[in-house]
Amino acid sequence: MEPLNVGIVGLGTVGGAAARILLESADHVARRAGRPVHLRRAVVRDLSKPRAVELPEGVLGTDPAAAVDDPEIDLVVQLIGGTDTARELMLASLAAGKDVVTANKALLAEHGRELFDRARELGRCIAFEAAVAGGIPVIRAVGEAMTANRLTGIEAILNGTSNFILTKMLAERRGYEDVLAEAQRLGYAEADPAMDVDGTDAAQKLILLTELAMGTRVPLDAFPRQGIDHLLLDDLLLAHELGYVVKLLAVTKLANGQLEMHVQPTLVRIDRPLAQCDDAYNMIALDGDAVGRTWYAGAGAGGMATASAVVADVVDVAAGRAKPTFDRLDLWGDIPPLPVQPAEEIERRFYLRFTVEDRPHVFADIADILGRQGISLASIIQHESPEETDDDGPPTVPLVVMTHRTTEGQLRKADEELQNLSSVKPPTVRMPVAD
Amino acid sequence: MEPLNVGIVGLGTVGGAAARILLESADHVARRAGRPVHLRRAVVRDLSKPRAVELPEGVLGTDPAAAVDDPEIDLVVQLIGGTDTARELMLASLAAGKDVVTANKALLAEHGRELFDRARELGRCIAFEAAVAGGIPVIRAVGEAMTANRLTGIEAILNGTSNFILTKMLAERRGYEDVLAEAQRLGYAEADPAMDVDGTDAAQKLILLTELAMGTRVPLDAFPRQGIDHLLLDDLLLAHELGYVVKLLAVTKLANGQLEMHVQPTLVRIDRPLAQCDDAYNMIALDGDAVGRTWYAGAGAGGMATASAVVADVVDVAAGRAKPTFDRLDLWGDIPPLPVQPAEEIERRFYLRFTVEDRPHVFADIADILGRQGISLASIIQHESPEETDDDGPPTVPLVVMTHRTTEGQLRKADEELQNLSSVKPPTVRMPVAD
Repeated sequence: MEPLNVGIVGLGTVGGAAARILLESADHVARRAGRPVHLRRAVVRDLSKPRAVELPEGVLGTDPAAAVDDPEIDLVVQLIGGTDTARELMLASLAAGKDVVTANKALLAEHGRELFDRARELGRCIAFEAAVAGGIPVIRAVGEAMTANRLTGIEAILNGTSNFILTKMLAERRGYEDVLAEAQRLGYAEADPAMDVDGTDAAQKLILLTELAMGTRVPLDAFPRQGIDHLLLDDLLLAHELGYVVKLLAVTKLANGQLEMHVQPTLVRIDRPLAQCDDAYNMIALDGDAVGRTWYAGAGAGGMATASAVVADVVDVAAGRAKPTFDRLDLWGDIPPLPVQPAEEIERRFYLRFTVEDRPHVFADIADILGRQGISLASIIQHESPEETDDDGPPTVPLVVMTHRTTEGQLRKADEELQNLSSVKPPTVRMPVAD
Repeated sequence: MEPLNVGIVGLGTVGGAAARILLESADHVARRAGRPVHLRRAVVRDLSKPRAVELPEGVLGTDPAAAVDDPEIDLVVQLIGGTDTARELMLASLAAGKDVVTANKALLAEHGRELFDRARELGRCIAFEAAVAGGIPVIRAVGEAMTANRLTGIEAILNGTSNFILTKMLAERRGYEDVLAEAQRLGYAEADPAMDVDGTDAAQKLILLTELAMGTRVPLDAFPRQGIDHLLLDDLLLAHELGYVVKLLAVTKLANGQLEMHVQPTLVRIDRPLAQCDDAYNMIALDGDAVGRTWYAGAGAGGMATASAVVADVVDVAAGRAKPTFDRLDLWGDIPPLPVQPAEEIERRFYLRFTVEDRPHVFADIADILGRQGISLASIIQHESPEETDDDGPPTVPLVVMTHRTTEGQLRKADEELQNLSSVKPPTVRMPVAD
């Protein structure tokens, strides 16, 4: 059979690993693809950079046009970051009659609709398994395996960096900054980790999964998003004492025709599968009306793991599976978007930590205010040992309360009243609890 | 677009649920399939049986030929058990130009090669996601998502009935027979549970996964297979004390060009994902050379969960994804089969429980014999409390030993010598420990 000719644009960790698989496992890939897959062009910014993979002569170059405009190339594997150049390049590739494989979730979260519409107009396809959860085939699960189901829920750990940091903080009783520095040394965190630790990366991935699972559109600012960058070890330890692990949980639930969505540090009961997803691993739980809950876990990042997803997409294009799948995705179609529930109305259980002066009646005052807002309490921890204080004021202690189901709105109102209590000092920490 | 016309043969728990999804979620299925999917015929043995699904007029009948020979039908969903009639029916369906979706793992394990060859000759396809692990899309994971990888290992819980019984035995400290009776009442175990609890069902599924993952052929008697039907609660409790959970683990490892395979009650360290797969759930871990380990979990049985997989296959056929996938599966192709390592040579750690007389030097005698066979010990438990004895002999106590890596062959030789020790009474229990 005719070979599939591939051009890779971007030969970083993932691109280099994908090139390596295509070259070193060529026979295996050809068998699974039903035809040879030839790496014809690899485009980089800087030719002088050392690479983990040795390319055949004539393959490496610096001009993306060499891949996009080469009529022999059938498929462009686009593995550059950012959104502007990436968008232009993808539009040019599609216009030139090429299918595209990408791992760029930011690009799809921002310009997905335009790109997908364009691909459909031109009869091409875009495959993007690697854009969410690295080597875990969750795009396939949602787009192909769960087609018999109406999906009603997603609960996931989608950012490996955050999960690595949270795991280490708890296991080794270390502070956030300390573990972040180690994660950067080990390559689990970027030099600029902002998008990972502030929840943006997980939120972009959740949007893609939600749009794919529920055939809707969700803007990034439609739901609450918090990262792990302000978490304190104390809260991880207190939560653990209560039988919970704190995870950066990305959640979508569909009920009564509206979406509940949030990406937040969340308490997960210690015996739940998501609580047991440690280190840089990702895990996704999907709820379907027929199958119930299924779980998918593995390496959510890293060169070879993500390249595994990229090359699987390349094989799908070669085998003729990618286009029929792409044509039938609900993603960015004409379905009217589902309303997203306002943050204030989302009803959940909460972990609240107050910093209180160690004197009589403090708890009664707090419980009174919470009670008047209709917030009832499920459990309480107050330790005896006073915390050290930075200033010379009276000693303070942490007071931890687990509420029954309540809303952000009720909590906000309670907060306003609590600020008037002289015995309650900032900060008050609030984290939701997974159902 | 032209509708896909479907005939279902066998309207039991799974068939009934599949029919329900096709009827009640017809719009959803049509959107994901890219065309309408019509249930044109449903064939049952007994028309008078009550059914969970109401079928349109003219659909229900008792003659399989009405589905197989109807020129309007494109796809036969074959959901009957057994292997003889099922084989004939599948061959007839293929010969009549129909694609086939099946959940019958026994049929594929026994006659897969013949059926696949025939389908290929005729240009048809067979889809069988539902044959392994019910609603968990592991056939897709192996056949489509992991195509960039050479798969080197499978470690799985594939029998929900056994896993339910093991979970309950440990959690509620109950004996095997007692929990089995409950599982039968709850519908988790068949009236005749033999194939589930003796390891046959898990072994058939492991064979299918292994053949698919490694492009080889494995007969059922090529590897050790044991069920949970002789397990004692005592061993589950002792293992737990050592930090392990006993699972009916189905394992394939590819190393040095040969396969290590076994289906046996196995000790799994309590913090491992497979140890945390409880109740009737299934979990599969796959090792790929690029992606590392990925995990898949969910309901491994049950009508709606299995029907989710059946209908996903129907959608794949309708969407044109099933045939390119089927054509490229390594399953039962022309690759020479990999040798399977003889049971005697498999090297693992083992849990050994001896029943010994409570008198001096017993442990020294056992340790001496094990040591002479090169079996070294990692840990030991001997409790003080004597067991009650049925006869009037001296009291016996359990002595539990965890070995370092050794082989079944070495253990068998040690066993022969141990039988000569008057202080060691039958039975000696032996279970492998997962790496």
